[in-house]
This record gives sequence, structure tokens and C-alpha cells, in this order.
Amino acid sequence: MLHFECDYLEGCHENIMHALIESNTEQTSGYGEDEFCARAKKLILDECKKDGAVVHFLVGGTQTNMTVIASLLKPYQGVLSAESGHINVHETGAIESTGHKVLALPGNHGKISASQVRAAMEGHKMDAAHEHIVQPGMVYISNPTECGTIYNRKELQELRSVCKEYDLPLFMDGARLGYALTAKDNDLTLEEIAACCDVFYIGGTKTGALFGEAVVITDKKYQKDFRYYIKQKGGMLAKGRLLGIQFETLFTDGLYLKIAGEAINKAELIKKILEEKGCQFLYPPQSNQLFPFIPDRWLQILQKNFVFEPWGVKKDDTTAVRICTSALTSQKNFDALCTALNELQQVL
Amino acid sequence: MLHFECDYLEGCHENIMHALIESNTEQTSGYGEDEFCARAKKLILDECKKDGAVVHFLVGGTQTNMTVIASLLKPYQGVLSAESGHINVHETGAIESTGHKVLALPGNHGKISASQVRAAMEGHKMDAAHEHIVQPGMVYISNPTECGTIYNRKELQELRSVCKEYDLPLFMDGARLGYALTAKDNDLTLEEIAACCDVFYIGGTKTGALFGEAVVITDKKYQKDFRYYIKQKGGMLAKGRLLGIQFETLFTDGLYLKIAGEAINKAELIKKILEEKGCQFLYPPQSNQLFPFIPDRWLQILQKNFVFEPWGVKKDDTTAVRICTSALTSQKNFDALCTALNELQQVL
Amino acid sequence: MLHFECDYLEGCHENIMHALIESNTEQTSGYGEDEFCARAKKLILDECKKDGAVVHFLVGGTQTNMTVIASLLKPYQGVLSAESGHINVHETGAIESTGHKVLALPGNHGKISASQVRAAMEGHKMDAAHEHIVQPGMVYISNPTECGTIYNRKELQELRSVCKEYDLPLFMDGARLGYALTAKDNDLTLEEIAACCDVFYIGGTKTGALFGEAVVITDKKYQKDFRYYIKQKGGMLAKGRLLGIQFETLFTDGLYLKIAGEAINKAELIKKILEEKGCQFLYPPQSNQLFPFIPDRWLQILQKNFVFEPWGVKKDDTTAVRICTSALTSQKNFDALCTALNELQQVL
Amino acid sequence: MLHFECDYLEGCHENIMHALIESNTEQTSGYGEDEFCARAKKLILDECKKDGAVVHFLVGGTQTNMTVIASLLKPYQGVLSAESGHINVHETGAIESTGHKVLALPGNHGKISASQVRAAMEGHKMDAAHEHIVQPGMVYISNPTECGTIYNRKELQELRSVCKEYDLPLFMDGARLGYALTAKDNDLTLEEIAACCDVFYIGGTKTGALFGEAVVITDKKYQKDFRYYIKQKGGMLAKGRLLGIQFETLFTDGLYLKIAGEAINKAELIKKILEEKGCQFLYPPQSNQLFPFIPDRWLQILQKNFVFEPWGVKKDDTTAVRICTSALTSQKNFDALCTALNELQQVL
Repeated sequence: MLHFECDYLEGCHENIMHALIESNTEQTSGYGEDEFCARAKKLILDECKKDGAVVHFLVGGTQTNMTVIASLLKPYQGVLSAESGHINVHETGAIESTGHKVLALPGNHGKISASQVRAAMEGHKMDAAHEHIVQPGMVYISNPTECGTIYNRKELQELRSVCKEYDLPLFMDGARLGYALTAKDNDLTLEEIAACCDVFYIGGTKTGALFGEAVVITDKKYQKDFRYYIKQKGGMLAKGRLLGIQFETLFTDGLYLKIAGEAINKAELIKKILEEKGCQFLYPPQSNQLFPFIPDRWLQILQKNFVFEPWGVKKDDTTAVRICTSALTSQKNFDALCTALNELQQVL
Repeated sequence: MLHFECDYLEGCHENIMHALIESNTEQTSGYGEDEFCARAKKLILDECKKDGAVVHFLVGGTQTNMTVIASLLKPYQGVLSAESGHINVHETGAIESTGHKVLALPGNHGKISASQVRAAMEGHKMDAAHEHIVQPGMVYISNPTECGTIYNRKELQELRSVCKEYDLPLFMDGARLGYALTAKDNDLTLEEIAACCDVFYIGGTKTGALFGEAVVITDKKYQKDFRYYIKQKGGMLAKGRLLGIQFETLFTDGLYLKIAGEAINKAELIKKILEEKGCQFLYPPQSNQLFPFIPDRWLQILQKNFVFEPWGVKKDDTTAVRICTSALTSQKNFDALCTALNELQQVL
Repeated sequence: MLHFECDYLEGCHENIMHALIESNTEQTSGYGEDEFCARAKKLILDECKKDGAVVHFLVGGTQTNMTVIASLLKPYQGVLSAESGHINVHETGAIESTGHKVLALPGNHGKISASQVRAAMEGHKMDAAHEHIVQPGMVYISNPTECGTIYNRKELQELRSVCKEYDLPLFMDGARLGYALTAKDNDLTLEEIAACCDVFYIGGTKTGALFGEAVVITDKKYQKDFRYYIKQKGGMLAKGRLLGIQFETLFTDGLYLKIAGEAINKAELIKKILEEKGCQFLYPPQSNQLFPFIPDRWLQILQKNFVFEPWGVKKDDTTAVRICTSALTSQKNFDALCTALNELQQVL
Repeated sequence: MLHFECDYLEGCHENIMHALIESNTEQTSGYGEDEFCARAKKLILDECKKDGAVVHFLVGGTQTNMTVIASLLKPYQGVLSAESGHINVHETGAIESTGHKVLALPGNHGKISASQVRAAMEGHKMDAAHEHIVQPGMVYISNPTECGTIYNRKELQELRSVCKEYDLPLFMDGARLGYALTAKDNDLTLEEIAACCDVFYIGGTKTGALFGEAVVITDKKYQKDFRYYIKQKGGMLAKGRLLGIQFETLFTDGLYLKIAGEAINKAELIKKILEEKGCQFLYPPQSNQLFPFIPDRWLQILQKNFVFEPWGVKKDDTTAVRICTSALTSQKNFDALCTALNELQQVL
């Protein structure tokens, strides 16, 4: 079977594997206080171009979300998020386990807007009983979202602006950030994201690394003692250098955006074939995750050789599935999928 | 000003005050291990007629909700509740502060149904990623609800049945239970509630007491070490006898239901006047909390002498407000309100 | 039986009972936003003479400790406390339930010193692995302590000074504060306590009230949104005026210190009799809690009529017990105890 | 510099690296539901020989400790541990962050005994105020301990016995388990550990893996829904196969014990040289961590080429340091250290 159901199916990019092999017997300090991490941080900060920003490396996304959010909120505060936000639906209550409510806002294909944030803040302030209600204390977005959509510059700057007005930290979950930055519709740079977000992370796990998320904290007031949080939440890797080695590789010679871009190109081609065949999409297809409605008779054929993720929505005789490409999708698998799709009979 | 905005405006029923005066210099053990508490518990259990049930006294509703829910759930579980549930919207995230997500279901005027619970359980079970999702671990209802509506016997028995099927504890917030039990539409008895719910509480604060909620745990498997929870969550009153004295009084000679019934009678009369005048209601008026749409020109007149609670909903030239009666509403205030309402000009 | 085992055996002082009776039918806003609370706060602040301080009322001690401490600490911080501190041993882990470690220091009869705080802070800072260790984030003391001892001015000012140096909030648990302020050895005033502590509370429960603790937050930086904490932790009383009524009474015409002083006088006399009889004390007898070693043959006689609390320590043929007086100890009970003690045969 | 300060200085054993390289482009399911994990679990269970046991893989030790302990305790319970236990001193309050108190017992060079557990349980039960005290709910030990000492069969069986008597789960932190099992003084087998402990883990991070801890839950009653805990606490690795690949390698052809045993042999030789030179040890030298008192004049010489971890204790003109060997300590570094030690002048 050839797998396209998610973007964490393989090991890592060959450059990362080489770096791991090469460094294997070298001795370094533990817990991320090594030269690999130092160099990787510098490379990332060079691209963020945000004075005073700092970088921390964590192992996975849920861990990163809970650690960052726990560090930003006071105990009586909650986090504004799209209803479909990963923290709201796919982390087994990790945020609540740290004592905080996720304040879910209806998403527009996974995105929330500045005006929704403003309405939430004004609504809270105006409520006579506001002390009986969880206070919105920060904004969580992901880019791309769980629906594969991306934020554009205008949307992000408006969020930045409303967050500043209400003194709310803005946190971007970038578990798939590479695929947002290389999406065809994208008009944002890493530098602009660093300028807009108080905290964001650059996902490695789904973009060529074995694992790893690089958290960038741009605002000094959220930087203090962050390593205590990492340790307490169980995210401090003993052999922290593994994160440094991987991110140093990803941020050398533009590898990160290069391989993310290749995945986007593959996704664009799949999208184009599906569109030409007459498929509709559950969400606007913008990044490496596509959510087409596939005719059930096609699925019967395709599922003999390919794995997609069923997405729980049916329409007429079609079923929405998730099809992902990633930085590690092989040309061979991709070609096989294109061929198979091309051979399918057009939707009427 | 005469106040009708809520049902915790005055001190306590005169019988309670007498009991407090009489017992004042008596010496008793602390923390609820006194004779007053023992007698009060017996009186309550006599009415519940549920073998093996136990009673604990706590001070207030939010405290009770968080203590009970924390005792019933495993760390990765959440509590199913109506969106409008007190635990979801008016407890500053107390439930989340104990690590649990409130799993909100759309309410039918504050009520949730057995079929919603079933759907939530089946949906969770069927989701391939269910380990990444908070597991529904119990059901929270309130009776009356935050909307003043009540559960009937059929609804409660169906909830009982579905909870049993999925091994979910059923917890009823009875902060205003007296007003449910004496409501005109009610067909439930305390005994039936004790038979259906694993845990429920009989609210004192809003029904004639200075404060106090009597938690009844009917199922043995949820009884173990409950006093540890009370103490840890800050709910163990040093002079616990104050709770015993109050509940002993309320459950002597049927005082609790008698005074709740008087409040219901008052609410019924107010409702009748408003209906006759042509008012509509935001929620079906069933208990001591009424949510009429009051014409704005009436409000201008009424608000010179009466306080209602604005409920944040407008329709045409009317505004929804909350009008409450309680076990302590004086005849004088009630008469004044009736007179004032009767004098208003009919809605066209 | 006449009870001396603790200081929360009776109801309340008669002045408080009168105030409750008088106000009983009056209508007020809920949740402490009433005129009784406003007046009580003013009376307390007038005595504290600390510009910018604010007062909040909570129901009980454990609740107050967990609420205050949760509001002062960051998630990775712990609270320095004497090993015998109430938060460390008698709150069923309430502090830990909010996510924080109690960092226990060996106590000197329940007291900790500025030099211990300094050593803890320096030790933490110097440890190369300090990010792997809970960071001390505040200091908790109680006055009187669990051992009945009191802090003098010099000790408190030194704690104030070291806390300021390390930017640690200093929190005094004053569940029995009246008995410290009226102790014979005391050289502190309420004003000085307000000047030294960032947060402290004036206990009502054990000093003549039915219940209630008045939290004074002197430093502005710890005042923000404190009512959210109270609500979330379950401590916001619906009929909050009950707290206002009680503290208004206690702080009218110096009642609080007057009745605390009467309890101290009784304790002093009991202590004097015991000392004259040759008894030794487990801890220096300084306030309303005495911990004498009572000869076992005396106990056999006394326990026919009197209840003391066994304290789990034996020495030769004596047993340490706790004997408490309180603001509500009756003259009759006190006289009976004195007579009984005087009749005992001197220790050899 | 040659490093001996800890046992997580290098990457991984060459066999693991080969397995990672070989599997790198293979596609597998995420979150540990892959064939590598399945095979690794089977290999581990084959050695544990405990019917009904299950295995889960987590990334690191602190994460594992907090996840396991949170799954075993009720909210009002705490965990009995040696004062020097990793959970008590080196996890930034991770256990407390899940709401639980660590109930520290004085350790005997890091070990606690059955009689201490019994005394804690009896003391709790006998205390009249036990509901006000954290209830001991489980026992945590580590083997080897933080002091490098190991439990023998008799000690472990006694712990097993007392835990069974009080219905306490027994949890062994085996972050360095390989070094206990291959220690010269050891008389325990993996099978016996599985028979005695309700939960234990086999550490990979410090024994040749890049990272990874294999948790074995032997008792069925603690197995339910464990993956929910892993996910919620942030420990579920997306590319979970990395853990499977590593443990499959470690448990193929006895590699785990073989390489642990080599580290023990190296430690034994270092210990022998130091003993012959007259060094004393802070703790009995039993496993791969040695805590010798090194004369300060030696340290001046050694620290030019070698790194040890200062351990904060001085005696006469010596300083206690930690010297570790590990499964990845190279022969070259080891020989260099031996040579350097042998060249030092004997302690008088």
C-alpha cells in the first residue's frame, strides 16, 4: 500500500540522517545546551530577523502547545481558538489538564478573525458577571490550519493589531508552517510571522525531521524561565542535541522551505487532477493537506493501492478524505497516485 | 428598590435563624462530624429512600460542582453538559482548573437528552483517533436548568438508562432543586431523582438557607474518600454544624418543599400576569426563574422601583430579563410587583 | 463534656448574631458586592493604614491559602513554608492540587527565618541544574504558627527584607491572627503586618465568627483579577454579605482584638497554672493554643470532664495535648477547667 | 575534553543507527501503532514473562514518571518516594503539576524500605485528621537510585508484599535499569522485577538509545486507557516507530544487557582504581554512577582533560563528584581515564 493519509509516515530527510550519523559519537552537554542547538537557534533567528527573539526546541506538537499555553495564561484565563483547533479537539484535553479552558470560536475553514477576537473580548468585558466567566487570555491559531487553509498577511496583521489592543499574546501553531510558507496563495514570510506573533513554532516532525518543533518567542515578556516550563511539562529531551542537529540541517541552505515547497508542488498537482476530474473540496485546498470529496466508486478502486484518511463527511455518493503530501513523499509514490487518479473516469 | 434579579438576595428563613440562635453556644466537633449534621443527613436520606446513599454538606454550588466532578472523572475524561450549563459558562473555569474539559452539547432550553449522550459516546468510540480526544466520562445536568426549565420523569429515566449502558455517572446540579420539585409541570419526586442519579445535590443557598448544598451520593462506587476531596478543594467548613443546623431545619416538617412551593406559586402568578399582558418568554417558564421579553417602555417604568437581571437578548422593542422569586421573597415585595405589572398597558 | 481541643467549637459572638438577625430580610447584591462588605473592608483598611491595599472575604482557611498561593505563583514555582505549615500537612494537598510544590523548611517551633529563605534562594540559584528544580516563588508563614508560637517584629522585618531582595511575595496565614496580636510577647501591630506582608489574612472563623477570612492584599501587583481566582477556586459566597456583616461587626469598636485578648488572658491563666504545677510544654506557650505535656494520671482524671486534642508525642509518663481557648470560650467552661487543674497534684 | 559527568552524552549504539537508516523510507502508521513497536513490545514481554503485561513507549523519563503517576493516583493521593527521588528533586515539580504531592521519606542512599512504607500507611490511617492529610496512594522507587545504589531481591519482595497488603501500586523508575540488572551486587532478574512491580520502565535514553523509555504495566487494573494519558501529557510521539525501532534493536540478541554490562565493567574498574588509591565514596558504588570523594589536588589535574559532575559535598580536602560510564562510553575515553587515575598519587 502507498500511504497518503498523513504527513508523518516516514523517518527523516537524508541530510538529517547524515548529520545524525556524523555526530553520533561526539560528546555534548545534555538538555539542549550544546553547540548543535546553539547553531540551529542562530540559523533560525537569522531568518526571523526579530531582535530579542529566542528559540527553544521541543519534541512534539501537543507538548509544545500545552507548554507554551501554560506559560502564557494566568490560571483563570482561557485560550481563544477555532473550534477545529488542534488544542480543542485532538490533544485529549492537554490544555485543560494544565487548568485552562479552550474558548472555541466558530472557524472559517479552521481560521478565526480579528473581529471574532474583538467580539470575544468586548463580550467578556461587557458581561456584568465577567468574573464568573473564563477570561480570554491569549489567541491560538495554526498556520496552516487543521483544514489545510492558510492565513494571509492582512488577516495575520489584523489579528496582531487586535491582540495588541487587548494585550493578548498571539500564538501560532506552526506544526506544518513550511507548507504555509510555500503555499501558492501565501503572501507571508517567516520574518512577518515573527513580527506578528508573540510565540510561534516551526514544525519539524511533519517537514522532514524525525521529530522536533522550534518554538520562537519573540516578545521578551514571555521568555522568562521558559526552560522551567519545558522541564516541568516533560518536554526537555536529555539528548537535546538531536533537536539541534535536525534543525541545523533544516535551516542550512534553505532545506526547510525547499522540501516543503516540493511537497506543495506535489499537492498542487494532485489538486489539479482532482479539480479537472470534477471533484469538489471540503475545505479550500491551499497547502499539503487536501480534503477532496472522492466518489465512492473511485475509492473502491483507489483503496486497493492507496491509503487516505476518511474525514467523516459524506455528500451524495462521495466521501471526504484527507490526502497529504509531505517533505518525505517519494517521487515514486507520488507518480503512482497521479497515474491512478488520471485513470479514473471523470465525475459527471 | 425591590429586587427580583436573582434568588440569593436575603439572609435565611426564620426557622433557620432560630435554630442558629438556639444552638449558638453549644459545643460540637468541627468539619461536619457533629450531631446536627448527622440528624440532617438522616432526614434527607429518609426522603431519598435509596439504600446505601450518603450525604455530604458543602458551602456553595461552584465548589460542589468542581468537587463532585473531580471525584468522578479520570484525568483524561470530560463532562458532558449543556452549552448553557453553569459549569460551562459561569464558574470561571473551575472544572478546567481541576484538569477536565467540559464537553458542551447544544441545549434544548438548557436541557440535554439521552440521545445526545448516546451520540456523543458512539461518536467518540467510532473515531479512529479517539485516544487523541477527551473521553466523555460523566453527564452533568441541572434541574431546574439555567434557563429555568425542568426535566420530566421520562427524560430523566432515559438519561439514567443511557448512562447505565455506557457506565457513565449521572450528576444532577440541584442548586435550585426545590423549585423543580414543586414546579407545576414536575412529575418527579426526590426519591425518583435519587434512584436515577449517581450523585445530585439539594440546594440550600437559593432555597431559604444562608448557604449550603447537600450532596447525595447514591452509588457506593463513588462514595469512597469523598471527604478527602471536600477538604482538598477547600469546601470543608470548620464549623460544619452550620450546614447541619440549616438542613436539619429545612428537612423538618417539609419546610424545604413548602417554601420552595410558595416561591413557585409567586412565579406562576407573575407568569400569568405577563402572559395575559401578551408577553413572550425566552425560555418556557417552568420554575422560579422567568425570562420574559419585557417591552422597553414597560422597563422604563418598572425599573424605577424594581430590579430585574438583563439577559442580553432583545426582540423588536422588548428585552429579555430574568425575574426570580425565591423561598425568601416577601409577600410585600411580591404584591408590589404584581400591582405594578397589572397597571402596565397590554402589549399590542 | 467541656471542650478545649480546638478553637472552632461554638457558633459566633453575640454581636455577630445580632447583626445577622437584624439584616436578615434586607435585600443585597450577591457575591460580596454589597454595602456590608464595603463597610467592613473600609474598617479593616482603616486599621491597616496601608495605601492602596484591598480586602477580599473568603469562607475558610484552606480555601484562602490555595486561592492566594495559586494567584501568586507561576506554574513552575513552589512555596517556601515551615514543615509544620498548615499548607504542608493539613490541607489534603490543596496547594499541590493547584500544581505547586510546598518547599518545606525545618521549622523552629513552626517558624522559619529570613536566613533560611536566603539559603533556599541562593541554593536554588547556584544549582547548575536549577531549571530541573522547582523555583521558590513565595514565602508562606502563619502567625501564630501551628505550634502556637508568634513572630516578633524583628523576625518579620527580616523576612520582609529578604523577600524584597529576592522579589518574593510574603504571605501570612492569619487564621488565628487576633491571638498573635494580643499575645503577651507580641510586639507587632496590624499596621506593621500590613507594611511587611504582600498578602495576609485576618481570620474570623477561629475568632468569634461563624466563618470567614479577610484577605488583605497590600501590594498592587498582586491585586489584579483576584475575584476571578476566588470564583474559580469555589470561594465566592453567593450571599457574600454574610462575610461583610461579620467582619463589620468584628471591626466595630475594636471587638476583634478585644475578644481575642480575652481568649489570650484565659490561655495565660491556664498556662500559669500548668507551669506552677510543673508542666513542661512541647512548644513555647505564646498564644491561644497551648501544648503542655500532661501527666497521664492527670489525663485520666481530666478526660472525665474535659476534651483536649492528643498531639501524638509522649515523654516519660506525660502526653502532649493541645488545649485551646477562643473568643467564644465561656467563662463557665474556663472556670471549670481552672478549678480542675488547680485540684491536681503537683508534678514531682 | 573527555566527558564522564552523565550517561547521555552521545547519540546511540551503532545497531540502532543502522536500524534507523534501514527503515528510514519505510511508511508506517503514526503514534506507535506500527510493526516495529509491535515487535519490540513482544521482545520485551518475552523477557518479562508476566502474563497479561503490556508495554508502552515514551520519549523521556520525567514525562514517563508524570504520566504513570498521574494514571495511578486519585486526586487526593500522593506518591511515597525517597527524598532524593528524581520526582522529588529533579523534575521541576512535574508531579505536583499533575496535582499530586510527593510524600518524601528519608532515603538510605536513595532507597526506601518496606518498613518505611508500612509506617507511612499506618501513620496515615491512625491520624484522627487523616482526611486533612494527603493519602499515600502508591510507592515510587528507582533502580538504580539517584545515588547509584540498587535494590536487592529481598528488599524488592518486601516492598511488593507491603504494597499488596495496603493495595498500593508499586512503580519502579528504571531510567537506568540495565545498569541495575548487570550490577555486580544484583540478584534480580527482569522477570522478578515484572513480578514485583505493577508498573516499571526500561530506560533506553541512558542505555544506548537516542531516547525512549519502555513502560511495562503488569497489572491489568492499571492498563486501561493508558494511551489517553500518554497523549494528554504530551508523550505520544507522532513517528512512534522510532521508539519501536530502537527497542527492537536493544532487545534483539540481548544487546540491552550486553552493553549495560560493558558499562558496568568499566565502572567497576574505575571504582577499583579509586578504592586502591584510597578514595572514599559518598554512596556505595554499585552501578554505572560512582560518587567518589576526589582529592582537590587530583581534581586540578584531572579537570584539564576530564569532565565530572560536582555533587555539592566536600569532606576534608576532597570533593564528591559523579563519574558515569554508559553503554556508549568509548573504550578510548575509558582507557584515558584509567590511565590518568592510575597516574595519580595515592591518598595518604
